[in-house]
Amino acid sequence: MGRGEAVSVDEALGILHSSYVPPEPGREEVSLREALGRILAADIISGTHLPEFPRSSMDGYAVFSSDTFGASEQIPAYLKLAGEVFMGEADPGPISRGQVFAIPTGGMLPDGADAVVMLEHTQILPPPSPGATRHPLPLRGEGNILASSPSMGAGREEGDEVEITKPVAPGENVIQPGDDIRAGEAAFAKGHRLRPQDLGALAGIGVTRVPVFKMPRVAIINTGNEIVPADKSPRPGQVRDVNSYTLAALVRKAGATPVLKGIFRDEFRPIREAVEDAISECELVAITGGSSVGTRDLTEKVINDIEPGIIVRGVSVKPGKPVIIGIVSGKPVFGLPGHPVAVAVCFYLFLRPLLREISGEIDQLAALGIPDVRAVEARMARNYSSVPGREDHLGVMLKLEDGELWAYPSLGKSGLIFTLVKAHGMAVIPAEKPGVAKGEKVMVRLFD
Amino acid sequence: MGRGEAVSVDEALGILHSSYVPPEPGREEVSLREALGRILAADIISGTHLPEFPRSSMDGYAVFSSDTFGASEQIPAYLKLAGEVFMGEADPGPISRGQVFAIPTGGMLPDGADAVVMLEHTQILPPPSPGATRHPLPLRGEGNILASSPSMGAGREEGDEVEITKPVAPGENVIQPGDDIRAGEAAFAKGHRLRPQDLGALAGIGVTRVPVFKMPRVAIINTGNEIVPADKSPRPGQVRDVNSYTLAALVRKAGATPVLKGIFRDEFRPIREAVEDAISECELVAITGGSSVGTRDLTEKVINDIEPGIIVRGVSVKPGKPVIIGIVSGKPVFGLPGHPVAVAVCFYLFLRPLLREISGEIDQLAALGIPDVRAVEARMARNYSSVPGREDHLGVMLKLEDGELWAYPSLGKSGLIFTLVKAHGMAVIPAEKPGVAKGEKVMVRLFD
Repeated sequence: MGRGEAVSVDEALGILHSSYVPPEPGREEVSLREALGRILAADIISGTHLPEFPRSSMDGYAVFSSDTFGASEQIPAYLKLAGEVFMGEADPGPISRGQVFAIPTGGMLPDGADAVVMLEHTQILPPPSPGATRHPLPLRGEGNILASSPSMGAGREEGDEVEITKPVAPGENVIQPGDDIRAGEAAFAKGHRLRPQDLGALAGIGVTRVPVFKMPRVAIINTGNEIVPADKSPRPGQVRDVNSYTLAALVRKAGATPVLKGIFRDEFRPIREAVEDAISECELVAITGGSSVGTRDLTEKVINDIEPGIIVRGVSVKPGKPVIIGIVSGKPVFGLPGHPVAVAVCFYLFLRPLLREISGEIDQLAALGIPDVRAVEARMARNYSSVPGREDHLGVMLKLEDGELWAYPSLGKSGLIFTLVKAHGMAVIPAEKPGVAKGEKVMVRLFD
Repeated sequence: MGRGEAVSVDEALGILHSSYVPPEPGREEVSLREALGRILAADIISGTHLPEFPRSSMDGYAVFSSDTFGASEQIPAYLKLAGEVFMGEADPGPISRGQVFAIPTGGMLPDGADAVVMLEHTQILPPPSPGATRHPLPLRGEGNILASSPSMGAGREEGDEVEITKPVAPGENVIQPGDDIRAGEAAFAKGHRLRPQDLGALAGIGVTRVPVFKMPRVAIINTGNEIVPADKSPRPGQVRDVNSYTLAALVRKAGATPVLKGIFRDEFRPIREAVEDAISECELVAITGGSSVGTRDLTEKVINDIEPGIIVRGVSVKPGKPVIIGIVSGKPVFGLPGHPVAVAVCFYLFLRPLLREISGEIDQLAALGIPDVRAVEARMARNYSSVPGREDHLGVMLKLEDGELWAYPSLGKSGLIFTLVKAHGMAVIPAEKPGVAKGEKVMVRLFD
């Protein structure tokens, strides 16, 4: 493929896919507290029932459900209060027919009981026979939350009668052992990215060390005789490093680790050495350089010198056209244009989806066609002319006018970083469109 | 307000807003590399023009634009190659009328030149007079990227003639000093959350130490006699800690720092001490406890004992109804129900927007009415009946059927953590709806 034979974005992605299949990532074990956002490196099978014992899902009374059958407001059932379940303690059962145990939400069902009657459908009465002895319920200090709560029937005593005005079916208001997950059941599949609730669930089944894939490392090689570190004062003709900051942050947000290799002069040998070094250490290499033909040629020469591996030489996208993609020693190497906006566009188009693949993630939402960024529809606030066959990415500011979102192209010459700073997102003008007329709707991918 | 007088979600948010205005957060300075996602604690004014010098935006020749006026394919202009601009070096000018300097993209415009002619509209010719001496352009080793690139006219020599076939206007293909941002211009406003491109822009103007607001700290107080740490084996009646893992991760994703205070028995004194300690150290306190009336009463008693500060006692939301909100010593304290799903719902409804406010962020997209989560529309796969006046949050799995997304309620009894693990997001059934019929469209807020 000669220079200038830019391919479409889809063609470039297709070439990338057919040229490169990421190997399964390496594994490591992390503590559950550090596992947020990491990708599971193995299926997780629950080693336990959750819960491990039958639990009440209500405040009320544990009963033999058959003792309540037929109970109503008119003809209540009368059962005997035989004790109380305390949170965090083994069940105080067994209970016998005709008995109930007071039980709080989450308490362990006493042996023999098979349902819980909600407090709201009960009433405490003194013992039926006037001569009966009254045994106060054992008070456990402040831990006795049932007895200490007026609404739970403080003053209630063992031997009291409980009037029940509504029947319960077997299992009613009870969470059975394994209702949440059963021992031996698959809890999580390999490739799942861990969300907050997943950490809670893993804790629930006692998995506090988690097998995860190693995070992809992305080498960032910054080239250009004009580039000085951001904390240095540039001399005339020099500029501060912008791209390594933007790119490293994009990499981090994509769940990967940036490895900053430093700033290199536009000279063959040091850049070649940096790329070779980066390939041995990282899963992906990004060379950011100038947008001149000379620097692009240099990047190409370096990649092809290590191993003839250029697969894409230019993509019909604005900005980002001069992007070079190669596979060197089995790893993707990107030659990114020097314009900061082009760096961001190429990242979103190529590096971000590639990093997802490299990470080992199996993204269920992506499989459903749901994009991995927030997007909104907005009306273009001015005419924008593109070139058929070229996909345009345009930083836009959003404004609300008459209840509708309008997208204002972020003004400024192409490649200026502050056009992206002012923007809320990027409008994408598909390759098949020659442009967008004022008032026409566009999709805006929001920065997050 | 008595027990059971649950307010609507909007009422609860209204009460919270009228009872609590977060103070401006404390400030700290972080290095630019660590500033991603942090909130600017001050306006940033650029101390410099960016760029600081006029730069070419093309590979080509720096010219007096007036020398090219009238040039065409038929009648080209002929100018003399007087030298070359090297990347990262001061301009080699001045140039005189009738002269051009070769210049790469990003190179510093020579003094005197006011435009750049694109390489594509030029051609190199040998010097016009046969007797003229040919001075080879000074080669700077491999750094001389222009001369070393065949397409940039390798072999080109000082004194050569450059044929120009298209005129350029003054300023054409030139980025002027300050085009990206001007010295003294506001670069960023206080309250802005820093995105990848913002880090690049700050680097560009030399801001490598960044004033940011301190991240909000959220104390997590885990109560319950039945709770054991996740790495312990629960005895009968005990369960492993789930909520502190889910909640800490939700806090972290919201850009705040979780402070784990530990697991406490349902006893007044230690919980009271933990809350007092947490208030002195953190900006927000979350007590997760059981869902029994007893534990709820205890949380209420603790909050009111430190300072009578309960402002919301129950919200008409499922799950999450028993949530308690208080303001103690000027800081919000939440009593969260014990069900893991209720914890997540209460977090999304109340803690997350509150943390945004506490963080000092001024969210431009929120001001435009754009929600801060990804959401998709889907059709409910089964009838779901709610209660008018109650807002329902329902974990759903998404499936693609006939090109449409369908939302399947994640089966399982309420409060089970694995219902959230299986779900892709939460469908929200607004309070005014009595339910949703199969096939009806609902908004699903996706977990991220």
